Amino acid sequence: MVLDCANSSVSDFVLEDVPHLSDYIPHLPTYPDPLQDNPSYAVVKQYYVNKDDTVAQQGGYPGFYSRNTVPLTPKVVNDIHKRGGTILGTSYGGHDTSKIVDSIQDRGINQVYILGGYGTQMEAALIFEEVRRRGLKVSVVGIPKTIDNDIPVIDKSIGFDTAVEEAQRAINSAHVEAESTENCIGVVKLMGRYSGFIAMYATLASRDVDCCLIPESHFYLEGPGGLLEFIEKRLKEQSHMVIVVAEGAGQELLSKNPTPIKRVQGDATPDQLFQDVGLWLSQKIKDHFAKRKNMTLSLKYIDPTYMIRAIPSNASDNVFCTLLAQSAVHGAMAGYTGFTVGPVNGRNCYIPFHLINEGEKNVVITDRMWARLLASTHQPSFSNTKEMVGARDEKTENQTSDS
Amino acid sequence: MVLDCANSSVSDFVLEDVPHLSDYIPHLPTYPDPLQDNPSYAVVKQYYVNKDDTVAQQGGYPGFYSRNTVPLTPKVVNDIHKRGGTILGTSYGGHDTSKIVDSIQDRGINQVYILGGYGTQMEAALIFEEVRRRGLKVSVVGIPKTIDNDIPVIDKSIGFDTAVEEAQRAINSAHVEAESTENCIGVVKLMGRYSGFIAMYATLASRDVDCCLIPESHFYLEGPGGLLEFIEKRLKEQSHMVIVVAEGAGQELLSKNPTPIKRVQGDATPDQLFQDVGLWLSQKIKDHFAKRKNMTLSLKYIDPTYMIRAIPSNASDNVFCTLLAQSAVHGAMAGYTGFTVGPVNGRNCYIPFHLINEGEKNVVITDRMWARLLASTHQPSFSNTKEMVGARDEKTENQTSDS
Amino acid sequence: MVLDCANSSVSDFVLEDVPHLSDYIPHLPTYPDPLQDNPSYAVVKQYYVNKDDTVAQQGGYPGFYSRNTVPLTPKVVNDIHKRGGTILGTSYGGHDTSKIVDSIQDRGINQVYILGGYGTQMEAALIFEEVRRRGLKVSVVGIPKTIDNDIPVIDKSIGFDTAVEEAQRAINSAHVEAESTENCIGVVKLMGRYSGFIAMYATLASRDVDCCLIPESHFYLEGPGGLLEFIEKRLKEQSHMVIVVAEGAGQELLSKNPTPIKRVQGDATPDQLFQDVGLWLSQKIKDHFAKRKNMTLSLKYIDPTYMIRAIPSNASDNVFCTLLAQSAVHGAMAGYTGFTVGPVNGRNCYIPFHLINEGEKNVVITDRMWARLLASTHQPSFSNTKEMVGARDEKTENQTSDS
Amino acid sequence: MVLDCANSSVSDFVLEDVPHLSDYIPHLPTYPDPLQDNPSYAVVKQYYVNKDDTVAQQGGYPGFYSRNTVPLTPKVVNDIHKRGGTILGTSYGGHDTSKIVDSIQDRGINQVYILGGYGTQMEAALIFEEVRRRGLKVSVVGIPKTIDNDIPVIDKSIGFDTAVEEAQRAINSAHVEAESTENCIGVVKLMGRYSGFIAMYATLASRDVDCCLIPESHFYLEGPGGLLEFIEKRLKEQSHMVIVVAEGAGQELLSKNPTPIKRVQGDATPDQLFQDVGLWLSQKIKDHFAKRKNMTLSLKYIDPTYMIRAIPSNASDNVFCTLLAQSAVHGAMAGYTGFTVGPVNGRNCYIPFHLINEGEKNVVITDRMWARLLASTHQPSFSNTKEMVGARDEKTENQTSDS
Repeated sequence: MVLDCANSSVSDFVLEDVPHLSDYIPHLPTYPDPLQDNPSYAVVKQYYVNKDDTVAQQGGYPGFYSRNTVPLTPKVVNDIHKRGGTILGTSYGGHDTSKIVDSIQDRGINQVYILGGYGTQMEAALIFEEVRRRGLKVSVVGIPKTIDNDIPVIDKSIGFDTAVEEAQRAINSAHVEAESTENCIGVVKLMGRYSGFIAMYATLASRDVDCCLIPESHFYLEGPGGLLEFIEKRLKEQSHMVIVVAEGAGQELLSKNPTPIKRVQGDATPDQLFQDVGLWLSQKIKDHFAKRKNMTLSLKYIDPTYMIRAIPSNASDNVFCTLLAQSAVHGAMAGYTGFTVGPVNGRNCYIPFHLINEGEKNVVITDRMWARLLASTHQPSFSNTKEMVGARDEKTENQTSDS
Repeated sequence: MVLDCANSSVSDFVLEDVPHLSDYIPHLPTYPDPLQDNPSYAVVKQYYVNKDDTVAQQGGYPGFYSRNTVPLTPKVVNDIHKRGGTILGTSYGGHDTSKIVDSIQDRGINQVYILGGYGTQMEAALIFEEVRRRGLKVSVVGIPKTIDNDIPVIDKSIGFDTAVEEAQRAINSAHVEAESTENCIGVVKLMGRYSGFIAMYATLASRDVDCCLIPESHFYLEGPGGLLEFIEKRLKEQSHMVIVVAEGAGQELLSKNPTPIKRVQGDATPDQLFQDVGLWLSQKIKDHFAKRKNMTLSLKYIDPTYMIRAIPSNASDNVFCTLLAQSAVHGAMAGYTGFTVGPVNGRNCYIPFHLINEGEKNVVITDRMWARLLASTHQPSFSNTKEMVGARDEKTENQTSDS
Repeated sequence: MVLDCANSSVSDFVLEDVPHLSDYIPHLPTYPDPLQDNPSYAVVKQYYVNKDDTVAQQGGYPGFYSRNTVPLTPKVVNDIHKRGGTILGTSYGGHDTSKIVDSIQDRGINQVYILGGYGTQMEAALIFEEVRRRGLKVSVVGIPKTIDNDIPVIDKSIGFDTAVEEAQRAINSAHVEAESTENCIGVVKLMGRYSGFIAMYATLASRDVDCCLIPESHFYLEGPGGLLEFIEKRLKEQSHMVIVVAEGAGQELLSKNPTPIKRVQGDATPDQLFQDVGLWLSQKIKDHFAKRKNMTLSLKYIDPTYMIRAIPSNASDNVFCTLLAQSAVHGAMAGYTGFTVGPVNGRNCYIPFHLINEGEKNVVITDRMWARLLASTHQPSFSNTKEMVGARDEKTENQTSDS
Repeated sequence: MVLDCANSSVSDFVLEDVPHLSDYIPHLPTYPDPLQDNPSYAVVKQYYVNKDDTVAQQGGYPGFYSRNTVPLTPKVVNDIHKRGGTILGTSYGGHDTSKIVDSIQDRGINQVYILGGYGTQMEAALIFEEVRRRGLKVSVVGIPKTIDNDIPVIDKSIGFDTAVEEAQRAINSAHVEAESTENCIGVVKLMGRYSGFIAMYATLASRDVDCCLIPESHFYLEGPGGLLEFIEKRLKEQSHMVIVVAEGAGQELLSKNPTPIKRVQGDATPDQLFQDVGLWLSQKIKDHFAKRKNMTLSLKYIDPTYMIRAIPSNASDNVFCTLLAQSAVHGAMAGYTGFTVGPVNGRNCYIPFHLINEGEKNVVITDRMWARLLASTHQPSFSNTKEMVGARDEKTENQTSDS
């Protein structure tokens, strides 16, 4: 029972049963456990998936993603964990569930593993639904691989640790630069369009940050209690500062006050480059201090996005990856389907897609972790306390409570 | 209730109540929560220790360790997380509990935080007992800081992640060296006198290891099924291999068959340098292959011990450290004492010293993690399977089951 | 004689004599060599500056730079080589030679060491001239510290090696990103406003670059033989590519064809952020491929500028720094002045300021090093060959010929 | 003329002419320069080897080394500069010149490039002599690749920079360890059996070293002015210290006073593991302080040898490698043979084997670089000054004078 995964801090979730092929395929034959004869597992008590740590109920059928197949032999993948990037290739958007499942069916594939973040897991769920609708004997399994760490229910996703490590490096550079020049602000933009986990953890790890801005915590620039006032104060105190801003922070400010830049571009398609909150914020700060006669501001802007994405995974992520891969394969071999594998309170669990897909995980700014960040940066909350108390009381169930 | 920390995988532990000063100091005054007025915590629901996540029962008073005091102002500690080593200094052995508590009492200290591994936590318990015996109003708190990860009950200790990362680097060097030369064995000795966690995790992270030897899993050199036979086989197959050996592995072989080296030294005091299992094993392997006429063996021995110990902590350990430090201080401020703080199934808990001190944590070789390692290295178990099945059935309660 | 420094490859320079205080201060007393009694130098043949490796002729007097003094005791500087940035602080522009020399005179300073790049060395020359005009007994010495490596005459400047190392890291990230996505271009902007040394060396070191654009080699975007045509060709061949662009490359294109962005900003002051050649080039490429119906381009832009600047110097720069520091001090102690210290064909020399200040060092695109780069990237020359042959024949004397 | 390479600091060398195939093969046809049509070299003035920078005279024929051939296509070598080790494989000793040249002749090979250190270059010379004896039209070219930097005439060899960088990392670890414990000595053994370049440069780069021991500078342990006295003094002053010892340092002490360990091993073959000067020195120091009642010494021994060897080359070595590779190929294509390519005073030159093979390059302890080291560590010279003055006066011509 996945209820085993639940402890008090996630007891708000009612983790329902994980689908199983036998739910919709009657008379499914079973086979003896193939690991029974594997010497490595000879003495392991629970070397196989059983009722005690996963659950079965419904049904599912898989899909298919890319056109060309790459045979992943042990030799091919022998060294890939030492390099960044992916040998599989990545792409964004445009995905036809029906065609994917056609392809799965045509090729006779019976296990599909889908690696990616929140968006990818949502698409995996659609494939699973189509597979189940067609009654195919195909297991569809999600593996949570995203540096953004925005997949709900699970403790963390593959790549997050590595990303925080490298993000901290960028923050350190900003700190070194800022300390070396008078009246200098280092601005570091980090990934996180909808959630600020990388920014928050890298800030906590670094301890050199004076202000961390994330999508979940609104801020405003002008006036008393605004960001610009805080910057002036901090520069006055220590003559330099470091600001970390997550990609998705302050987006409501950018859209409310579109910059000339965006208008001039005049094209309908979103221009990633110039809506960049980091560039926007840097410009706003520079404009603000340009009015000051008696002060020359220096601003160093760092966008380490692709340098973070491209580094090889660290040891912790390597081990984590091994565990999830193994759990995923064991689950599929046991006939379970329609689930994402991931740690819940330190224990690898199988989580049905519909639980994963109830909404991205966000930083809960009424939880202790964000309070720890505020205590580390001493930044203002930029918020009406009354509003936040409201937020606290409404804290929804699908947000993970950090401990 | 700390029972909150328990979920199925540790439900074998009956986590008893954490001691509290009020247990033996009657009429202890209480004060309003100082964080109530801290803006960072203004909207945090549970910003303070309460009955819901810790427990109180007994009592205790602390002790003191070093003679000179170093004022740890924010300025002094500002950058220390970016350097390896310690500004506090370290030492081994010789510790007089009574004198320590005298010193605590004389200086009027009322909170004592003790950082270290399993041995340190055991000494902390003695100090706590003496403090309690004298009825002092002093909180004694343990913080689990050891790269060995051998503290029971808790998920992991500060420094472990960093050590595994760097250990993997050493393994990678051994692999590069071994691959570059024909019939070459890279031998890497890693820390772990009583437990093989670093060796096991670094092996899993690296995936370049052909054989991992830890104290918990006995091995033998000669004869069928022995290590030397396995080495011959592996060299024949792929002409190079990497062996990882934890410091404490095979110690029964070293003492049973003392090498000439040790005897010649002829001094009573243990000579760390020449009882080195890595040097011993390297010599045994070289001796074995020296008899082969038609084969020249090359062996590269790497002992990265102090290079691992000396590196700065990684981002993950930095954040972890922040969390534990904060939990520790909150616990002490709330009057709890006689506990070690640490994560249990991903949740920071207060664990009474007597639970910590029931025995070091070891790698459980009948659990899945070790099975994963065997599946990764394809090394033999070097053991009588019957014995191991016995071990499996007797698996004791104070060993953490990995998931 | 500094002519000792000259060999065939720099014999075009007539290295004139280095100024000496005695040139304009008659009856200057001399002292016995203080190193005679230093045990470290007891057996060194030429432990002191003598006619054999430096030269004296003219005269000079120093200046002063910053208002506050920082006593640089051994203790203060003990660990600074392990951190990036500077404890001295940096600033740009606005410098009043007369006031600086007043300050030097008032404080009784008699040795001035000035660290920086080409601009800084030019300012040092002005201070030296003023000091000489006033007849002060002050040595003014320049130390070449710039990652740009744009100081003429000398082989390389402090920081260059470190910068190339880190720049290569950024290129590697771009390569990993580009390889992981179909039709993906990684664009890396590197430092170099007037010279492309970092871009050229990082490209040669990396070997992953398909096109390197530097200020010294003009390029054009549109039409046959243009950059966009080359990009199309390369993407068609291998579906991904990496472009390295030095800060100052193509500036004539940016000013000839000001982008809408710049016009809208509408301010007279140069806006560093939006005249960025990297952003401009990225936009141009995206605009070009946006017209293609049957192709989706992915472009990853990396600007590692401040991450490069902020890293600690590598071992090679550490040693280099020690050598130059020592040479500089020995020169000043021996009474020489008005010179920059630096390696010329591997030998540390004293170069009079007026030789340094005859123009920045540039990449000579008719020399072998650039030919090697072209042979590595297989990029087109983007130039009319006739023009280049002209350039070759006119190759001026103050450009270093690489070997 | 290679005399172009000579400047004052190496004018002691009479660099003789480099052999050319036409020296012993009459009527050798010549071909138009293949680079004339290479667009990358279209405008390069001197894109080809000519009389101006190399020399021809004698003759030569090449040899062959390994039995199996590996086709080195661009694809195969595409990423190898990012990994440590070698895909070619390495081996030591046992080399039959005649058989090698047979193989070269049988396979019709006409260009042989031989990579390695001093020993390898000596063997290359033998192959060249045999090739010349047989009158084969084969160019034999040496490429100086050794972290030891012990090849004479040339400025430095490939790999040295990288090794110093990593060696500094090990020293830093020793320093961190030593600083963290009272009365603690960090001992780092570095490569260098016959020359102390890595130890000297890493010491200069690190600036954390209290004593650096190299083969070229004798030392003694006991008595006034000995190493043990110096250690006592330094520990008393600052309570910790770092000692760097090159592999070949003090070998005369080890052989004069063989340790019991070595005798007991009792085998004729040299046992690399236990003649280790680092272990020997560590033991001597521990034995010495074990007699002190009132002092507990802690000693941390680091042998980073294989971790240094295994790391990928740094950017500086990557570029260096490109330059030498190109010079080597151009030389061979132009018909020159029997030479090693390498930088002499910053300029790539062709050096006939017989000049290379006149003896390994050593650290000249009467030169400035060693004096700089002594000034940095403040270690005693451990030598009779009179003897050193003698050494100074006898300083031989084939030792490079550092500048």
